[in-house]
Amino acid sequence: MISSFANAQVKRIRRLQKDKRYRYREQAFVVEGTRLIQELAANSKRPKSIFYTEDWLADAEHEAFFKTVNLAGELVTNEVMAVMSDTETASGILAVTSMIPIPLPTQPSLVLILDAISTPGNLGTMMRTAGAAGIDSVLLAPGCVDAYNPKVIRGAMGAHFRLPIHHLDWEEIANYCQSLDIWVAETANGIIYTEVPWRQPSAIIIGNEAWGAGIEAHSVAKGSIIIPMAGGTESLNAATASAVLLFEAFRQRGFSS
Amino acid sequence: MISSFANAQVKRIRRLQKDKRYRYREQAFVVEGTRLIQELAANSKRPKSIFYTEDWLADAEHEAFFKTVNLAGELVTNEVMAVMSDTETASGILAVTSMIPIPLPTQPSLVLILDAISTPGNLGTMMRTAGAAGIDSVLLAPGCVDAYNPKVIRGAMGAHFRLPIHHLDWEEIANYCQSLDIWVAETANGIIYTEVPWRQPSAIIIGNEAWGAGIEAHSVAKGSIIIPMAGGTESLNAATASAVLLFEAFRQRGFSS
Repeated sequence: MISSFANAQVKRIRRLQKDKRYRYREQAFVVEGTRLIQELAANSKRPKSIFYTEDWLADAEHEAFFKTVNLAGELVTNEVMAVMSDTETASGILAVTSMIPIPLPTQPSLVLILDAISTPGNLGTMMRTAGAAGIDSVLLAPGCVDAYNPKVIRGAMGAHFRLPIHHLDWEEIANYCQSLDIWVAETANGIIYTEVPWRQPSAIIIGNEAWGAGIEAHSVAKGSIIIPMAGGTESLNAATASAVLLFEAFRQRGFSS
Repeated sequence: MISSFANAQVKRIRRLQKDKRYRYREQAFVVEGTRLIQELAANSKRPKSIFYTEDWLADAEHEAFFKTVNLAGELVTNEVMAVMSDTETASGILAVTSMIPIPLPTQPSLVLILDAISTPGNLGTMMRTAGAAGIDSVLLAPGCVDAYNPKVIRGAMGAHFRLPIHHLDWEEIANYCQSLDIWVAETANGIIYTEVPWRQPSAIIIGNEAWGAGIEAHSVAKGSIIIPMAGGTESLNAATASAVLLFEAFRQRGFSS
């Protein structure tokens, strides 16, 4: 049982949680909680290492699950788990897994492009919603928070293990999406989002929470779309707007992806 | 200028931020930040008191705005503002205002009912989205976090000043909504949400983030609705699901409220 904060593995986990450059150098990231680790295993991703507490293992369901993952984990004390965890109340299990992004499909049909989304919770929620709405892939343009930030991982609820999620520059995005109608979400001046023919191969760009989409986003887009709102002063948060747009596309596609 | 943490007004603000019972006893709550206080003023609500820092006032736009509010505020030090504020980085201005809920319309057309929503951020986001989607009123069933919780206020982005938002028990809800088709959102087994005739006077119930809607919700509902999702294991967070449902109703209504 690991009980020392000075243990090399404990230090490594803490660094993976906090240091983006270290994550990329190691090509690894941390996944926390029973449900996410189940998702990881269900999607045939093998954790590199697992750490859990005795309290976690005491749950009969957890023990049964643990056997199916088929990897020897290491016991740690509650105190060590607390310092390894990115959450305020650690769930009692975490794993390290490799960054092996799912390749982009060669013939994309519906793509979500995120431009400089800066709030990890928003980015995670958008990824989760994208998975539910049958999106092919999520492209993270420059300025987005890191896809492997622990808060993004938690918010995405396993989208990382099922969806292609890639950080790309605008040239790569333009190149990949050249056969798609690219629409940029705006707060004013655009086509109403329900009037877009979403059965066409399409991409949606959602811009930064505070200042919207940037100049590169507009230069690759075919046009702007808006969500009509009641009253004059209303607005939606970026994750909500993206859910409304994605589910309109999914509706027009007969809810099939 | 208030510079002491022991000042009676400073203590009162802190208590209003943290203590729900005190808020209701005083029938008052705290609103933070330039934008929300502008919304408050724009909706003809007069703050009872305003506190701001010299740094805040140094902004020319802020000074002009402050004159329009037409109420003498009190200067406080940055340190005092930091302890009064519920946020990690205080915006430099906060106000106390009365709980004067907007009355419920006598002939409701589209109502959002929230059942035991426990996360303040979710509750605030749902209120904000409800305002944008032309909802008449938001009813908070038992178990919801307090509508005047500071995090709810921030997330709702002024919905409190424009929308009727009321904590009611299930009997009051059933009574108020007796002329409406009431639909409860579920994760399985229900009508697809796009097949509901939303032009009918309707209500939507969104249940708790973890365990969904409760038995009382089901007993007042006409039926269950679901949002189809891609893949097998996907799910949406409660605020996202409510946005998708509300904007489908708004779409069917021709985006008019």
